[in-house]
Amino acid sequence: MPRHKGDHEARRRDVSGAVWRVLAARGFGGLTLRAVATEMGATTGLLTHYFPNKQDLLAHALTLLDERRATRPRRVAAPAAEGLAALRAALLDILPLTPEAAADNRIWVSSWDAALADPDLAAGHADRYGRSRERIRRHVAAAQGLGELPSGDPDDLAAAIQSFVLGLIVQALLGAEAFPPERQIRLLDRYLAALTTPC
Amino acid sequence: MPRHKGDHEARRRDVSGAVWRVLAARGFGGLTLRAVATEMGATTGLLTHYFPNKQDLLAHALTLLDERRATRPRRVAAPAAEGLAALRAALLDILPLTPEAAADNRIWVSSWDAALADPDLAAGHADRYGRSRERIRRHVAAAQGLGELPSGDPDDLAAAIQSFVLGLIVQALLGAEAFPPERQIRLLDRYLAALTTPC
Repeated sequence: MPRHKGDHEARRRDVSGAVWRVLAARGFGGLTLRAVATEMGATTGLLTHYFPNKQDLLAHALTLLDERRATRPRRVAAPAAEGLAALRAALLDILPLTPEAAADNRIWVSSWDAALADPDLAAGHADRYGRSRERIRRHVAAAQGLGELPSGDPDDLAAAIQSFVLGLIVQALLGAEAFPPERQIRLLDRYLAALTTPC
Repeated sequence: MPRHKGDHEARRRDVSGAVWRVLAARGFGGLTLRAVATEMGATTGLLTHYFPNKQDLLAHALTLLDERRATRPRRVAAPAAEGLAALRAALLDILPLTPEAAADNRIWVSSWDAALADPDLAAGHADRYGRSRERIRRHVAAAQGLGELPSGDPDDLAAAIQSFVLGLIVQALLGAEAFPPERQIRLLDRYLAALTTPC
């Protein structure tokens, strides 16, 4: 049978689907060519056609994570919110408040080990989290413009807010019983309330 | 030659040293029986005598991390500090402000992937971070007793403080250029200053 571009694209989707399922089940630590091949019912040899080495596979997995984050519907609706309300909605949307959000975050957290072990992946992650801080910074600047947050370096404030949320995600994933959704929301709201008071 | 208990202990120390060097170089994602064996110039077969499987190796690595944390000298001196000053010193002692502290934190962060993939390791990590919050909670309660922090649930405040510090560690490791030591310290001090004001 002749091989068409459509076949290739369909196979790429199959591969991406298998990569995603392995990530969801085992995290980056369990993401190997063999695991993806087994998930697809294919040979490792076929996989090396797509990913000549482990780093290519990890890079592809991070790209899938980016695409998923960019295209998934928001979990927390924020129809007409701006300023502090938009910031709060964006942060709630990240926190592991639902099983789906916990699964996504679990994959992101597990990617840090892979990134710290590889300079190229680490540079990609530095960019990713820099862009994430930039998104938060825009909300902070808008809230400052509305008089909802005191003035002050919005870059530092964005970095502080991202710190708080990332650390809350880590603790909630590692200790789900101690961090039910209502506690995560309470902690976030108290943190934001402390920010709004000019201290 | 007869095998003595002393030989066994010495060999265990050799094994632990090799585990530590592999962790420092490659994180938990690179911690395999084969990597430890290579590091020791031993066979994988010898290693399976100490670690029948990968989970045993990971559990031993976490024990080594605990021991190292418990026995290492404090990086930030806090001779007579109590209350808020003691809390600040304890948090500075954790942050990746030095290459050595960054290396330790890098191993801890990399352990999260392994922990999230294994229920036993996850339970151990939930305990570890719960104990860490308890240490912070004692400082918080002391600072409240001294009138340095407003009243409020010290458990929630400890969880919030640990969130902030863990997330700052993650960002500093993934983006060292954006988070030089002086910025980490500034962010921490502003966070603590915001806590001290009854908002």
